[in-house]
Amino acid sequence: MPPTITAFAQSPDRGRGLARDMRVRWALEEVGRPYDVRLVPFAQMKAPAHLALHPFGQIPTYEDGAGLALFESGAIVLHIAERHPGLLPADTNARSRAIGWMFAALSTVEPPIVDLSMAMLVERDQPWHEQRLPLIKDRIRGRLGELASRLGDADWLDGAFSAGDLMMVHVLRRLGASGLLDEYPSLAAYVARGEARPAYQRAFAAQLAVFTAAQAGA
Amino acid sequence: MPPTITAFAQSPDRGRGLARDMRVRWALEEVGRPYDVRLVPFAQMKAPAHLALHPFGQIPTYEDGAGLALFESGAIVLHIAERHPGLLPADTNARSRAIGWMFAALSTVEPPIVDLSMAMLVERDQPWHEQRLPLIKDRIRGRLGELASRLGDADWLDGAFSAGDLMMVHVLRRLGASGLLDEYPSLAAYVARGEARPAYQRAFAAQLAVFTAAQAGA
Repeated sequence: MPPTITAFAQSPDRGRGLARDMRVRWALEEVGRPYDVRLVPFAQMKAPAHLALHPFGQIPTYEDGAGLALFESGAIVLHIAERHPGLLPADTNARSRAIGWMFAALSTVEPPIVDLSMAMLVERDQPWHEQRLPLIKDRIRGRLGELASRLGDADWLDGAFSAGDLMMVHVLRRLGASGLLDEYPSLAAYVARGEARPAYQRAFAAQLAVFTAAQAGA
Repeated sequence: MPPTITAFAQSPDRGRGLARDMRVRWALEEVGRPYDVRLVPFAQMKAPAHLALHPFGQIPTYEDGAGLALFESGAIVLHIAERHPGLLPADTNARSRAIGWMFAALSTVEPPIVDLSMAMLVERDQPWHEQRLPLIKDRIRGRLGELASRLGDADWLDGAFSAGDLMMVHVLRRLGASGLLDEYPSLAAYVARGEARPAYQRAFAAQLAVFTAAQAGA
């Protein structure tokens, strides 16, 4: 029985694959595991049934059909990576370092990027919006510069492609229309390498199909 | 040979145990493992030698003395928890859920709390400071309310104390002087339970001793 994940019934990003279910879809495609998707409408995100599964009323969640329910994209991707070959190196030290990159993507690189998204979505009409943007963008540039230095001219962050790269590529994609990624050509190329992977493309097509179907039915 | 971690040579929090080395110290105390500490002065955080160990020029790092170097407090605590009993349940599903709470602490609960810290430290003189504070605090309240609902009247987030609780307690401690934790008495009691653990107290004393020694030497 395949696992069931949750995703937005109506993609707020219009099918650009920026929501966090994309990370889980991509991981499952990398390890070649089928999965089912249950779509959650916005109106039900904070309803008791969904909160029972995800205490913060978000997506994605993961139910393995055998009694395990998880939330947090990092935890779900790690759970998948630990159980199926393809996302973590066999060497134990390299494995710990790959997991380290997952945490770096989520704890160090993503927060200032989410701050920028919040500024654009929620604080756009606030009187400080324009003034504060350069400050947020400089925080992001700090992280991107350090990340680019570490990546150097390698294809991936530490040896072969891992769950750490999967997380980092997806986090960087959230820079979207800001133009910041273009200031770091090696990181833009790194993201493009991730997007070129067949597993990424299958996952992207699957989440896009949800958006397209919702549009057709609207 | 015990592992070596890094910590600030000069605690910016004046020994209140809010820096992220506290998480690693606490985890090592919970599992009863000795460790060495190397103190990094601020002026050396972004120097090549430290960047080679931590690409983002932060603390903590972890070197096991046998070839492994890690950064990111989440990755280090998980590495310790996987290798020594005391921080993860034996049941595999419960283990995955405990790791899920580690990610929830770092990816979902901590970012708005860091945003508040940044507002107080870096944006205090900005013209928008006072106006923006209520918005940040309401974001934190949203998370805290949902976390309190999930915790209910339990002692810990999912069964026995785990690495997930360790991370969450430390993240919540960063609310510090904001007064927000006091609005959620069950969460304040949860943090107090964490702080009452003997392993926490040993870790706290060790980081405080660094600050006290630096003061005495200043």
